[in-house]
Order: sequence, then structure tokens, then C-alpha cells
Amino acid sequence: MRSIVSPTLLLNESICRDNIRLMTEKAMPQNILFRPHFKTHQSATIGNWFQEAGVTSITVSSVRMARYFAQSGWNKITIAFPLNIRELQDIEDLSKTIELSILISDPEAIPYLQGFPLPLNVWIEIDTGYHRSGLAFDQEGKIEKTIMAIGNIQNLRLIGFLSHTGNTYHTIEPDEIKSCYQEAVLRLVKLKNRFERPGQSLAISMGDTPSASILDNFGPIQEMRPGNFVFYDLMQYYHGVCALSDIAVALACPVVAKYPDRGEIVVYGGAIHLSKEYIEQDGRKIFGHPVLLKEKKWLTVGLQNVVVSLSQEHGIIRLENAMINAVNVGDLLGILPVHACLTANLMKGYRTLDGRFIDHLEGAGTF
Amino acid sequence: MRSIVSPTLLLNESICRDNIRLMTEKAMPQNILFRPHFKTHQSATIGNWFQEAGVTSITVSSVRMARYFAQSGWNKITIAFPLNIRELQDIEDLSKTIELSILISDPEAIPYLQGFPLPLNVWIEIDTGYHRSGLAFDQEGKIEKTIMAIGNIQNLRLIGFLSHTGNTYHTIEPDEIKSCYQEAVLRLVKLKNRFERPGQSLAISMGDTPSASILDNFGPIQEMRPGNFVFYDLMQYYHGVCALSDIAVALACPVVAKYPDRGEIVVYGGAIHLSKEYIEQDGRKIFGHPVLLKEKKWLTVGLQNVVVSLSQEHGIIRLENAMINAVNVGDLLGILPVHACLTANLMKGYRTLDGRFIDHLEGAGTF
Repeated sequence: MRSIVSPTLLLNESICRDNIRLMTEKAMPQNILFRPHFKTHQSATIGNWFQEAGVTSITVSSVRMARYFAQSGWNKITIAFPLNIRELQDIEDLSKTIELSILISDPEAIPYLQGFPLPLNVWIEIDTGYHRSGLAFDQEGKIEKTIMAIGNIQNLRLIGFLSHTGNTYHTIEPDEIKSCYQEAVLRLVKLKNRFERPGQSLAISMGDTPSASILDNFGPIQEMRPGNFVFYDLMQYYHGVCALSDIAVALACPVVAKYPDRGEIVVYGGAIHLSKEYIEQDGRKIFGHPVLLKEKKWLTVGLQNVVVSLSQEHGIIRLENAMINAVNVGDLLGILPVHACLTANLMKGYRTLDGRFIDHLEGAGTF
Repeated sequence: MRSIVSPTLLLNESICRDNIRLMTEKAMPQNILFRPHFKTHQSATIGNWFQEAGVTSITVSSVRMARYFAQSGWNKITIAFPLNIRELQDIEDLSKTIELSILISDPEAIPYLQGFPLPLNVWIEIDTGYHRSGLAFDQEGKIEKTIMAIGNIQNLRLIGFLSHTGNTYHTIEPDEIKSCYQEAVLRLVKLKNRFERPGQSLAISMGDTPSASILDNFGPIQEMRPGNFVFYDLMQYYHGVCALSDIAVALACPVVAKYPDRGEIVVYGGAIHLSKEYIEQDGRKIFGHPVLLKEKKWLTVGLQNVVVSLSQEHGIIRLENAMINAVNVGDLLGILPVHACLTANLMKGYRTLDGRFIDHLEGAGTF
């Protein structure tokens, strides 16, 4: 750690590989296609760890990400984001080299696929209650018209119904996650039964880390797409989805000032490193928890030690007296992130505990 | 705008140059060194616009940023962040080529400067009430010891007291911003009078966009370091600091789905583009406001139209009926950001309304 001079995202490879292995071992025997979401790590190297665990199909959240993972050898990719018709040319280019699946989240996009020159897998995204994107599960007339519109376009192959039950993140207890998931599956099974025709089976694809982690049995579905579990984070921990010891990333931050009178220290590590995602707990905001960095591991400390605020580059950590006294200016402290996906996306790279650099998709957009 | 296929940060150069000009014209006649903070734009090109307006000295928030702007020709730079002793070698390297100023926010860092081989300007950071970083204004004994410790190290040149009155962001009305600023200046003037010695004058440096924008007269200070005013944003607007028409950046986002029953649309543009910064207004969260993109400008619409939630790539916008009916899948909508600094840092580049690319410091950290 001596060579670390500025905020650096540490990756515990051993925890990360365990997270990958456990989820793979759970999903695969259920005769379900495990198609992990790679938006969390966005890393070709970490992608290889999934491949070593037997994964062959993946999910991404943008065309950029699909291109990146196609270039690193993945050839079965679902872009789990509403079809952006402004990117049709890129989608066409990608579908020349890989088996690409896209989402229809609004039938208004379908006519733009007329004349698409290559076979393309299409999922209908269903909103089972999260109200982010997808056709509402109970608008069966609209869903029927969408199925017909897809059927009328050559080269489109309807695969089935896909949902992200992100409302599991609005729950407080593991039991609520289960019932939220099961209700969503029931709604999708109902659609499947209603619209399946001889010769056209319809699959069900689910995907969110809380339910994938908590449930042992995923029920009558054909595909599972969790993503965050590769690292987990404090949001998952506070939802009862993982243990603190399952979190595979921590931001190493130099301590730059101590204010014992305030019970606080300042670290170099702010919103441009961690993101401003927070957890609300007992009326206070938690932007992270500090951990002690040791040779090749980190040690959690009491959760009364909290990152209480973040500005662009500053992190303010409230520490109990014993910890303030033990920390010196110039030390490194780790911070467990609230939302690992956003932290990883900001940091654009990882450092393993033995000092290797692990890649992350670079850049932010196209110009 | 036709060539835009994915989230793109639009920059209205004319508004931006006006913001620069107005602040420069206000600060310069007051016999105050105007040392704008470049952490908001992080752009060599936009830096040139400041230079054209007569600016010669700048502020940054990291050693990385100092290096970037030194490379693009700036030679008077203050790193307005608590000295990070892990970066001393980089600071030494920089001070070989430019006139560098650093902050002491905790005297514990001072002994590490022993033997620093080149002249180095030092500010003592004072916490005038914001409680982020800096020595508390009323701990005069500690401040005195800090002054002595700096004086005991060759090559260090104490410049004075520097403060960021970020608590102006906790105010609701312009009058509160004024009184908050004036109280901070009084506290710094008291320290200046207490510790100034014949032959050693002490300067006062202030810096935050709310007070720099609202006040006409900056009072008995020697330096002003606002940053955000170069773009402004919704946070400034909701604090009464700027008009909506002063905001110089908007994120262009493709519309990917419409849900008239919910009164919402989904755009491609999420937390990895805008950041998760929000404004709380009447108990609801505002993650942005949509604007209509026209040839070479954007048009604001009623503030009842709100970005109500963001996930990694999705933005959910609540729109009034007339707007939902007028918008089609595949259209571009603009979003005024809540916090322009974080949005710019995520997007890593701008597109002017006439289609030119404007640079932004790349990457996220050092490995």
C-alpha cells in the first residue's frame, strides 16, 4: 500500500472470486441460464474470472459496454436497457459478430427495427412493480400488441419477458425481498401462460442481486441476471443481503486532517471517487464506513464510524475517540462504498491487494 | 444534435463566457486577486477563456489537476485541499516549474515539509463554520502554534488565512448567504489583526460561488476563489444564486421509453452521467429539470417537469401531459444538472452547441 498516494479502489480478488463462485454454483444446477450483469465491474479481467467459473452469456447496460465485452471475447450479450434507436447502427454492427439480445420497453421503438438486416433476439421488458422501465405487467392489451408488432418484423426473434425487480431495494427485510421477487415471477408466469403459443415458447428473465442472493430457489424462470453481487456493497449489507465480509472493494484514502474536537477526520476521497449515493439510517446519512487496511486484507470496525459527508474531493469521517487517536495524517484508511457500481464507474480501475492493476471500461460517453 | 446518440454534455459557450466575464468584471476592480477554482470545468480550453478575460492565477482541488493546468500553461496555482503528505514528491516536482500554493489544514502535516527544497506558498485553512476542513477559527492557540511551526521551516512562506464558506450552501435565502459570508470574513479579519506582524502581512482568501455571485462588495479580503459560477447549476438556482438562463451546461439524453399512464418518460442518462446529487424541495427529490433542445440553444420548461429518479443509466422524468404527448422515443431532451461539477467530472468532455468538442481532464486517479 506504500505506493498509494491518492484515492485508489482496492479489490480483494479472493472475496470477489468467492462471490462469483457462490452465485454460479447456486444458479447453474437450477437449469437456469446464469447471465450475470457486468455493469458493476465493467472489467475484461473480472469478466475472465466469470468465464473461468463457467459463465458463457452476459448482460450489460449500454451499447458501449456491449462493444467492450464483445471485443474481449464474449459472444452472447444482452443489452438490458430500453432500446435506444439512436444507436441502431452500433447495434447492427455488434450483431454482425455476436449473438445480441435487446429490450423493447416501449412499442414505439419497434417500427425503427423494420429492415434490420440480421437476426436479433428481443425481450419485452415488463414492469412488475418497480416503475422504472418496461410495459406494465397488467396492461395485457398493450403487451399483446407489442408481441404482434415484433412478430411482424423479419429477423426479430421474441425470447420472452424480462424484468428487473429493483423494488427489492425498497424493502427492509430479507422476507420482503422474497415476497417481492415471488410476486414478480408470478406476474411474469401469468403473461407467459397467456401469450405462449405452440412453437413459440417464452422465457422469463429476472435479475437483481437482493433476490438472487437471498433466495435458494429461483422458481419457474429461465434466466437470472444479477450484477452487484460480484462486489456487494453497504447498500446490500443494510438490506440484509450480504455480510460486511462479502464486500470485495474498498476505497483507499489518505488521511489529510484530524479534528478530535469534532470527532472527525478528513480523507482525500470524495464524491468524485465514491459517488454521492448514501444510506439513510435512523435519520442520518451514511456515505460509507471506514475499514483498517492491513497487509493483504482490511478489517472492519464498529459501524458507529461513518463517512458523514462528501464533497468533490473531501470525505468527512466521524470516528470514535480510540480510532481518532490511532490514526495519523498520512495514513491510509479504507472506505466501504455504499454503491459499488457507481464507485467502480468513477474510479475506472482497481488495484488488487497484491498490487496488480485491474482494468475497467474507460471514458464516459461518445462525442 | 443529430449526431448525438448517447448522453452528451452540452456547453453553451456564450453563457459560459458571460459567466466568466461578469465575475471577472466584478472581482477585478475591487483590488482583489481573482483566482477562480477550476475544479468545476477541469478544462484546458475553458481555462483559456478565463485567461482571455485577464485571469492569471487559479485554484484547483488536487495535485493531478494542478499538474494538468500547469501543463497547459498556468504558472500560479493554489491546491485548495488539505496537504496530502503522500503526494509531497509530486508537489516538489510541480513547484520546480510553477508558483505553487498549498493549504495547511492540520499542523500535524507541517513537519513533513522539513527540508522541502524550493520556495512554497502556504495558506492556513480556517474553518469559519462549515466544519469540513481547516483549523477552527476560535482555536487561536492552535492557530498560533501552526504559524510558528510554518515559520520554523525554511522555504515555507505563510500567505495568510483561507476559508471555504461552504455553509452558504446550507442557506435558503440570498440574505443568509450575505450574512454567512460577512460573519466568516469578520472571523478571518480578527485572526489577521491578531497575528499580523510588521514585515509579515497576512492575506485573506475566500471562495464560494453563492457569496461571490450575490455580493457586490467582497469586503476587506485579498483573494476570491469561486468555481461553480462558470457553469452554475440547479443547486445554485434553488439557492437564489443564479437564474435558470445562467446555467451553461445541459446533458443531452435520448428518450428511450414513454409511460403516459405514469406521467413519466425514461431517458438514457443516469447516475453515471449526472451524479446522484439532488435537491430536496417540498419533500420530493429533484435530480434535474428537463429542457427542450433547439438549434444552438435550449428552452426551459415549467419546473413541475422533474427528473424524479436516477439509476446507473436510466433517468426517470415526470412530465406534464402536454410535454409527454409532444415527445417521441428517439428524441433528445436536455437535463439541467443539479451539481455541474460532478456532472462535468463524470462526462469528461463537453460538446458546444455548434458541435465542437471541449476537453476535460481525463481519468480518475493514479495507480
